[in-house]
Amino acid sequence: MFKPLRYGMVGGGPGAFIGEVHRRAAQLDGLAVLTAGALSSNAEKSQNFGATLGLDPDRVYGSYAEMAEREAALPADERIDFVSVVTPNHLHHPVAKAFIERGFHVVCDKPMTTTLEDAEDLCRLVAQHDVIFALTHNYAGYPLVKHARALVADGALGTVRKVVAEYAQGWLATPLEQGDEGGSKQASWRTNPALAGAGALGDIGSHAEHLARYVTGLEIEALCADVTSFVEGRRVDDDATLLLRFEGGAKGLLHATQIAVGEENRLTLRIYGSEASIEWHQETPTRLLFRTVGGDERVYRQSAGDLGPAAQHATRLPPGHPEAFFEAFGNIYANACRLMLARRDGTDPDPLDLDITTVQDGARGVHFIETALASGRAEGWVDATYTPPDA
Amino acid sequence: MFKPLRYGMVGGGPGAFIGEVHRRAAQLDGLAVLTAGALSSNAEKSQNFGATLGLDPDRVYGSYAEMAEREAALPADERIDFVSVVTPNHLHHPVAKAFIERGFHVVCDKPMTTTLEDAEDLCRLVAQHDVIFALTHNYAGYPLVKHARALVADGALGTVRKVVAEYAQGWLATPLEQGDEGGSKQASWRTNPALAGAGALGDIGSHAEHLARYVTGLEIEALCADVTSFVEGRRVDDDATLLLRFEGGAKGLLHATQIAVGEENRLTLRIYGSEASIEWHQETPTRLLFRTVGGDERVYRQSAGDLGPAAQHATRLPPGHPEAFFEAFGNIYANACRLMLARRDGTDPDPLDLDITTVQDGARGVHFIETALASGRAEGWVDATYTPPDA
Amino acid sequence: MFKPLRYGMVGGGPGAFIGEVHRRAAQLDGLAVLTAGALSSNAEKSQNFGATLGLDPDRVYGSYAEMAEREAALPADERIDFVSVVTPNHLHHPVAKAFIERGFHVVCDKPMTTTLEDAEDLCRLVAQHDVIFALTHNYAGYPLVKHARALVADGALGTVRKVVAEYAQGWLATPLEQGDEGGSKQASWRTNPALAGAGALGDIGSHAEHLARYVTGLEIEALCADVTSFVEGRRVDDDATLLLRFEGGAKGLLHATQIAVGEENRLTLRIYGSEASIEWHQETPTRLLFRTVGGDERVYRQSAGDLGPAAQHATRLPPGHPEAFFEAFGNIYANACRLMLARRDGTDPDPLDLDITTVQDGARGVHFIETALASGRAEGWVDATYTPPDA
Amino acid sequence: MFKPLRYGMVGGGPGAFIGEVHRRAAQLDGLAVLTAGALSSNAEKSQNFGATLGLDPDRVYGSYAEMAEREAALPADERIDFVSVVTPNHLHHPVAKAFIERGFHVVCDKPMTTTLEDAEDLCRLVAQHDVIFALTHNYAGYPLVKHARALVADGALGTVRKVVAEYAQGWLATPLEQGDEGGSKQASWRTNPALAGAGALGDIGSHAEHLARYVTGLEIEALCADVTSFVEGRRVDDDATLLLRFEGGAKGLLHATQIAVGEENRLTLRIYGSEASIEWHQETPTRLLFRTVGGDERVYRQSAGDLGPAAQHATRLPPGHPEAFFEAFGNIYANACRLMLARRDGTDPDPLDLDITTVQDGARGVHFIETALASGRAEGWVDATYTPPDA
Repeated sequence: MFKPLRYGMVGGGPGAFIGEVHRRAAQLDGLAVLTAGALSSNAEKSQNFGATLGLDPDRVYGSYAEMAEREAALPADERIDFVSVVTPNHLHHPVAKAFIERGFHVVCDKPMTTTLEDAEDLCRLVAQHDVIFALTHNYAGYPLVKHARALVADGALGTVRKVVAEYAQGWLATPLEQGDEGGSKQASWRTNPALAGAGALGDIGSHAEHLARYVTGLEIEALCADVTSFVEGRRVDDDATLLLRFEGGAKGLLHATQIAVGEENRLTLRIYGSEASIEWHQETPTRLLFRTVGGDERVYRQSAGDLGPAAQHATRLPPGHPEAFFEAFGNIYANACRLMLARRDGTDPDPLDLDITTVQDGARGVHFIETALASGRAEGWVDATYTPPDA
Repeated sequence: MFKPLRYGMVGGGPGAFIGEVHRRAAQLDGLAVLTAGALSSNAEKSQNFGATLGLDPDRVYGSYAEMAEREAALPADERIDFVSVVTPNHLHHPVAKAFIERGFHVVCDKPMTTTLEDAEDLCRLVAQHDVIFALTHNYAGYPLVKHARALVADGALGTVRKVVAEYAQGWLATPLEQGDEGGSKQASWRTNPALAGAGALGDIGSHAEHLARYVTGLEIEALCADVTSFVEGRRVDDDATLLLRFEGGAKGLLHATQIAVGEENRLTLRIYGSEASIEWHQETPTRLLFRTVGGDERVYRQSAGDLGPAAQHATRLPPGHPEAFFEAFGNIYANACRLMLARRDGTDPDPLDLDITTVQDGARGVHFIETALASGRAEGWVDATYTPPDA
Repeated sequence: MFKPLRYGMVGGGPGAFIGEVHRRAAQLDGLAVLTAGALSSNAEKSQNFGATLGLDPDRVYGSYAEMAEREAALPADERIDFVSVVTPNHLHHPVAKAFIERGFHVVCDKPMTTTLEDAEDLCRLVAQHDVIFALTHNYAGYPLVKHARALVADGALGTVRKVVAEYAQGWLATPLEQGDEGGSKQASWRTNPALAGAGALGDIGSHAEHLARYVTGLEIEALCADVTSFVEGRRVDDDATLLLRFEGGAKGLLHATQIAVGEENRLTLRIYGSEASIEWHQETPTRLLFRTVGGDERVYRQSAGDLGPAAQHATRLPPGHPEAFFEAFGNIYANACRLMLARRDGTDPDPLDLDITTVQDGARGVHFIETALASGRAEGWVDATYTPPDA
Repeated sequence: MFKPLRYGMVGGGPGAFIGEVHRRAAQLDGLAVLTAGALSSNAEKSQNFGATLGLDPDRVYGSYAEMAEREAALPADERIDFVSVVTPNHLHHPVAKAFIERGFHVVCDKPMTTTLEDAEDLCRLVAQHDVIFALTHNYAGYPLVKHARALVADGALGTVRKVVAEYAQGWLATPLEQGDEGGSKQASWRTNPALAGAGALGDIGSHAEHLARYVTGLEIEALCADVTSFVEGRRVDDDATLLLRFEGGAKGLLHATQIAVGEENRLTLRIYGSEASIEWHQETPTRLLFRTVGGDERVYRQSAGDLGPAAQHATRLPPGHPEAFFEAFGNIYANACRLMLARRDGTDPDPLDLDITTVQDGARGVHFIETALASGRAEGWVDATYTPPDA
């Protein structure tokens, strides 16, 4: 009889949008069951919220440290298999560290850490303790993103020449964080440099950067950023435009902005190669445009029979039945969970499940954010080459 | 501590697309846990498949009759709260009947039955045993469909004049059911008159009809259908076009076809009123077009702040994070489950949860299918007025 | 040195939208020069308006009869080569007749006449006097409509099964014709049965019908129409929905409405065959969707290199430079004018120029309108087979 | 009686795409008649091609110099009123100069010149000889571009923060200019630095830059460009990405590329302000998206009643009848011609006709191209402030 994984969550208390997303994503395919939690830094809040989630009160903890310690002390067939880290960014490092050091696998929200030092520390810890670590760059979970990646890898685009990655939102066009009592909770921590690290660059720019690297397989070698805080009084960047140079000669442009009035979650990727190009939009994620130098234009659609194995591996429904945000996020969890199940059950992992965002990818993302901010300050091109530890 | 509902499933064995959809939809919001099943008419298959789903072997049954009887014999705090009926259409009636008569709530796939007599029998049984019965007309679960309905109800469209409902698929454009060993399993039962009742009219025409009635709130008074089987050897209709007349003078057109090569799941609804119109497409479900006689054109988007309570009640994610098929299907289960939880816990139901497709709606759907087939045979207009029992 | 044709116009005075469209279309390719006119039934208005168009006052006439007579009396190298008839519908017949009988070629707006008797009379006159007659079913002038037609003719769609033709406008959703002084001039004559014949069926339904026949090459054998006047006090139909049966077993649906609030000029055509389907939208006319039973989806685009000769013959610009309404209308004139030039110059016509809407096509259109109205009155299916005279 | 202007054309011989576009645009509204031409640098070709256009052989010249001189010698009521300059870029200056010095008005293709020195010379000549000079930045001729400009000017967007201008084509993704006999004629001169000046930056980047300035009314103060020639052996840039800073604090990004496989003529503009944003796409030019910080999304459509006077002034057709490339190009000519007619007839110009691209705008464009190339070479930010002479 199939036995799902047990997992615990740190963060994700009442009103935390991303915590609920992680819980839905984790349970979407029935591979993991929420079993423990340190859901809030306030122990009573944690306990009360755990009850609404149906958690055993004994498995709801007042702090991540307590949870790590007490879960580690439970028998192997009771304790959690992994932890989901969904706190504000500055806590990702200490929380992940506490669990990695006790041998727990980790699923962690992005950006991985708020400093490169912390990120590299996690790289070393993951290697040292040999745990599975997956960062939730959820947009890489869309089937047609995976198909785009396969097309590039298979050479269908020829040589990649130009990458256009954009992530535009409008929800921070006004000083939401400056309302009474700190304003919107979401806006408040995401614009607090101590909690979030960077602003638009960290929150969404890192998604665009990851998506570009994920699909092209190319590393960024140099960049030139113009970084702005448009909203008066804002303490982090809310807009950034970047020129990119990739290894091998491809050029790129990356646009990450949270003051784009009218935009909801406009994450788009275009890649122009010498032979063909692709175009994908997160807000209509079930279609991928593919056009060739010879003039053909075709649209790949979710669930169509001619998609490759990576896309099919990430799809649950037949043609015309759209899958969307939760399902893509669920694909991140599904791969990570199946890797853990294979580890648990001593079986060989399915190679398709190896497609996760690793701790080294996370360090690359943090390096990118720091480099972009440095370029913005320097008002010029900067070197962006980087190799994370233990890669 | 929150305790989710327990539910059993009849049908939905290996390879049954819609069974898996129901399971995902039922668990999406953590309101119900699969606890029992008669997953296949073959007892061994049922048992084996139950194991992959993590079901207790004692709760996996060889037949729906056994399941109804043995579950009813369990203590109240162990037995299932409701059953999901996801068999081929001809079994909906006997299965539902067996559970209703033992006091179980029912969630049933559509069309409700293959004969009007069976449908009316279920109407009477539901009333007699006072159980909650919800039909999964899942497209009514999309937030923007609910918003469209609210716009019509609030008079924003003025008087409804013209309704254009279309559901076009292409997957039956070839004789899929005539392959070796009966061809595709899906195609096979869906084109078998004994198992499915009707063809395109039942499988998808009933969705289009329900959507039109759901959003407008208007009943059909007369219809004229042209019903066709294009694929040689096919035993049911695979294409139907209908002229409709609604109460109050509105006219309509309904197009349901499964031979529309290239179409995946093109369900669309347009309603033109004297003051404004709406347009919605299932394949891009997060947008609703609204245009007025004065020339304004605006697009309502999922999660936008100005949607009404019914749409907000059916939404889980912030703007730009698309929800899609599973989430809409989950909304059907969520409302039904919350009604059952209120019944279980003795609380007042949230009025927004009362928005389910009732057994009477199901009878109306079956009457529509029969009337459309009759009109096709008669090659002319037929009366379509109908009042189900115990409405 | 190239010498363009000379043409005269009957109708098309100040404020007449379609007259200006014809003048622009006629001159678009420099093949014809406006040389004479009876632009208004009021001689002074005609004269004044002719002056603004730069017409020689001697060639501006007080009536079409005077124009026909006096132009015929001019020397062959001065008189007009053809006449454009852009009056309200009821005058098409007498005007065309006056010019045909004097040997002038005719370009005539649609629908051709307001009675079938008149239409058949024109068929006989055209044959008898051997003139070139072209009806301006301008939507057939779009390059991608011509490509769709070529795809059907080449068998790329297999056997045509289902045709969905729709023409929806919203401009008559209110009683525009009932304002002071007869209301809007356009609305006024188009809703006057004496001047227009039919309403929506004649004004736009005939376009949809022509488009369906033009692209499929199939004649309609039977139809069943629901014809409505939604706006109180309106004297013609403003909405019609039709079931169609074509020769060879294809079925169809045709929707023509002028009360579709929010719609501007939504003319669309979809054709589903046994092997592939096409979809085209007039409001985004530079794209044609083509999808196959095997799952390919491609988009043909104006000016792409792989379009066939008919589409290329109808295109003036390179890829991405959209051509639109005037250019499509101009293609109707271009073919007709090149046929006249070949006749004038004694050369063989280019076979691609033979693609015009003939007087027999016009009679078919009038027969369609009459049959649809009869079906609406009869509330049932009617025979729609028809062969025009001298076809 | 209305008398149209007479004009001559320099360049635009057989196969010259842009020459034919100018001729169609010039005659679209019947305001100007082609009367003279130096259509090719080869006198015989010029004469032969003039004949196909119906030109009087006496008015077809072997060189622009001959044409300028001989036309100037004709009586005032015979000589041309203006000249259209449609040669490769390097000839714009000498040709325009020859005609301006003789008092002829000029319509000139863009970019205005290949050096800033030439551009400034034209500024001085136009002022000195008091002629009307209009540059054909044709994309500014679209009605919805004019409406976007009016929205910005009226403050509907609040303070402009971010400008995203993109012009992507794919036709130069391969070395078209390196074929036999110099390859494609279009590709050949457009990639020859001596004839074209710059590559993508001049050919299409200048359109994007003009569009951004035209709609926002803001000048660029600094820029940082990454300029690339992707195709081996190409002698000019075929790709450029720019960071922009505008006066008043707005930031921008400009992307101009001709190696974007699959793109035809993707010119798009987005402007995000503090209160609202606009988005426009040249390939679907009849729609303008407008969204506010409060969440409203609306679509302005060509010919809708609520467009402002500038858009209405530039529109010929009712709603839903799309106007496109030729019509927008024609609007450039229409305004310029009406200014000339007012000058000729001694009347006051319509203020709406003053909306033309002036010789100073042209100089700004040339300065932009030179600055962008300089930034690319310097690999860093450069000052972009500029004031043309006699502005």
